[in-house]
Amino acid sequence: SDSRAREAARARNDRLTKPPGALGRLEELAVWFAGWAGTERPVLARPQVAVFAANHGIAVRGVSAFPAEVTAQMVANFRAGGAAINQLSAWAGATMSVHALDLDRPTRDFTTGPAMSEAEVVRALETGWTAVDPEADALVVGEMGIGNTTSAAALACALFGGAAEDWAGRGTGIDEAGLSRKVETITEGLGRHGAALTDPLEALRCLGGREIAAMAGAIAAARSHRIPVVLDGFIATAAAGVLARAAPGCLTHCVAGHVSAESGHRRLLGKLGLDPILDLGLRLGEGSGGALALGVLAAALRTHSGMATFDEAGVSDG
Amino acid sequence: SDSRAREAARARNDRLTKPPGALGRLEELAVWFAGWAGTERPVLARPQVAVFAANHGIAVRGVSAFPAEVTAQMVANFRAGGAAINQLSAWAGATMSVHALDLDRPTRDFTTGPAMSEAEVVRALETGWTAVDPEADALVVGEMGIGNTTSAAALACALFGGAAEDWAGRGTGIDEAGLSRKVETITEGLGRHGAALTDPLEALRCLGGREIAAMAGAIAAARSHRIPVVLDGFIATAAAGVLARAAPGCLTHCVAGHVSAESGHRRLLGKLGLDPILDLGLRLGEGSGGALALGVLAAALRTHSGMATFDEAGVSDG
Repeated sequence: SDSRAREAARARNDRLTKPPGALGRLEELAVWFAGWAGTERPVLARPQVAVFAANHGIAVRGVSAFPAEVTAQMVANFRAGGAAINQLSAWAGATMSVHALDLDRPTRDFTTGPAMSEAEVVRALETGWTAVDPEADALVVGEMGIGNTTSAAALACALFGGAAEDWAGRGTGIDEAGLSRKVETITEGLGRHGAALTDPLEALRCLGGREIAAMAGAIAAARSHRIPVVLDGFIATAAAGVLARAAPGCLTHCVAGHVSAESGHRRLLGKLGLDPILDLGLRLGEGSGGALALGVLAAALRTHSGMATFDEAGVSDG
Repeated sequence: SDSRAREAARARNDRLTKPPGALGRLEELAVWFAGWAGTERPVLARPQVAVFAANHGIAVRGVSAFPAEVTAQMVANFRAGGAAINQLSAWAGATMSVHALDLDRPTRDFTTGPAMSEAEVVRALETGWTAVDPEADALVVGEMGIGNTTSAAALACALFGGAAEDWAGRGTGIDEAGLSRKVETITEGLGRHGAALTDPLEALRCLGGREIAAMAGAIAAARSHRIPVVLDGFIATAAAGVLARAAPGCLTHCVAGHVSAESGHRRLLGKLGLDPILDLGLRLGEGSGGALALGVLAAALRTHSGMATFDEAGVSDG
C-alpha cells in the first residue's frame, strides 16, 4: 500500500465538512482504499465480482441440505442472471464473472485421501489468479459448491486449531443429524491427514475444494495487482485464511465485508483480526455479503472524494 | 400495510433460488417493504432524502463543539452539493431536498421557557409534512442544527424516562466540560417544564427544535402516504419517538437505518423496539446513516424482485 497516498487521504479526510470521525467506518475504509489505489481521492470505477464453483467428494456423506447437482444448476442460474449475486453485483455497479471448475469431476472425499492432487490444486489456484481483471479497482470473490462449508470448516480447523464442533455450522440449513455427520466427517478428515495439515497449502490441497483454491489464487493475484479485496463469508474467508497462514501479514489488502450467520465465520474473522463491515444475518455465499459491502465501500469513496473541505465550503471547523 | 401484498412477497421469497432465510435481514426488509408498497415485487424508483435545518437557543450554553453559525453554513454546503448527505443521496439514487427553518430565529433556550410557541411548532410540523413528495417510494429524514443532540436528549429523557446522563452524548465531539454543561442544561430544562412533558407533543414544543418537529411531521406524512421510512440517527429517531409516544404502534412504516456512535441512540432504538440495519460508528446526522441503509434496502428489493424462482431456474430446492 502507498503510504504517501494514504497519508494524503487521511489529511483530506480531516478537512472535509463534518466533525472529525463523524463518518466512522466510512472514513477508515476510504483511507485504507486510497493507500491501495495510490491516490488521495480514489473512485470506484471498475469493481469485479468473481464467482467460483466446484463440487466436493464429501457431498456423498450427507453434509448438505441440498443435492450435489445444485452446484451446476446454480452455475446455470448465475449465467442466466437469476441468482442473488447477479442482482447484488449489478446493484454495486460491478462486473460479474462465473468460473466453473471441473464440475463433473468432484474433488475426492477427504476422509479417504487428499481432496486434490498437486496438479489439481495448482490448476485451481491458477484459475483464480487469472480470473482477476488486472484493471479492476476492487475485487469480491464468491463461491458455490454443495458441501463446501464442510470443506471450509475442516480447513479452518486445520489452519487455526480447535475442534470440528467449533467450526461446523448449519450451512444451507442442515438438520441436527446432518450437523453430526458434518462434525464426524471433519474429524475423520483431520485424522486422516494428520501432520501434513501443518503446511497451509497442503491443508488446502487435502481438505479444500477447487473453488476455495481458486479464491485463494484470486486474493493473491489481487495483492500482486494492488487491488483491494472485500471478503465475503465463511468459505471465502477460509480461502483467505490459507494465505494468512502461508504468508502472515499478506491480507492487508482485504477487508471483511460482513459476518455471516454461519457460526464459524465470526470465529474465523477473529483469528484473522478482521472486523466485518456488515452484520445482516446472511448465509448464502456467492459473494453476496462481499458485494453488499462493496456498495458501502463505494459510498465511503463518494463521500471521501466528493465532499467539500471546510475551506472550499466556507464552513467554520469548530 | 397491505397484508395481501406482504404475504404474496413472503411466498415469493420462499421460492427464490437460495436456501430459506439465507439472505437474512434483506429478506425481512423486502417483505416489510412489499406490504407498504402494496405489491409482491416492489422496486425502489423514487426515494427521497429530506434534510431539515434549524437553530437552537440552548446553543448559547456551550453544548456543542461547533459555533451556531455552522448551521447556516452547512445549509449552504447542502445546497452547493458539498456535504456527505449530497454524496450519499446520489449514491443511493435518491432525490434530496433541503429545508431551512427560520435559521435567523433560533428556538428559545428551553431552560428559560418553551423552545417554541404553539404556532411555531405547528408551522415546523407542517413544513415537514409538506416536504414529503407524495409520489416518493421511500423516505429518509435528516437534520442539521448546532445544539440539537442536547435538544434530542432532553426530549428522549422526557419521553422515555431515565436521567439526563443516560441520554447526553458527545454530539459532534464535545469535551468533558461540555458534556457536563449538556447534562446540566438537560436537567434544568426537564425541571423547568415538569408535568407539561407528559404530553409528547408538548414535550416536543418545550424541548425540541424546528427541525425535530419537521422530521416528526414528515414521518407522520409518510405514514399517511404509505411511504416506508428509513430512520437516521439519534435526532431523527427522537422525532420518531414523539410520534411513537403520541400514537403507540404508529411506526410500523419505519425501520432503523443504523445505530450511531451517539450514546443515546442505541438506548432510544431499544425503547422503540427497533433493530438497526447498519452499525458503522457514524455520528454525523444529515440523514447520512439513513441514506446508507436506503442503499441496502434497494439491494434487498433488487434481490427479492429480480431473482429467479426454483421453478424458473430449474434448480432443485433441497
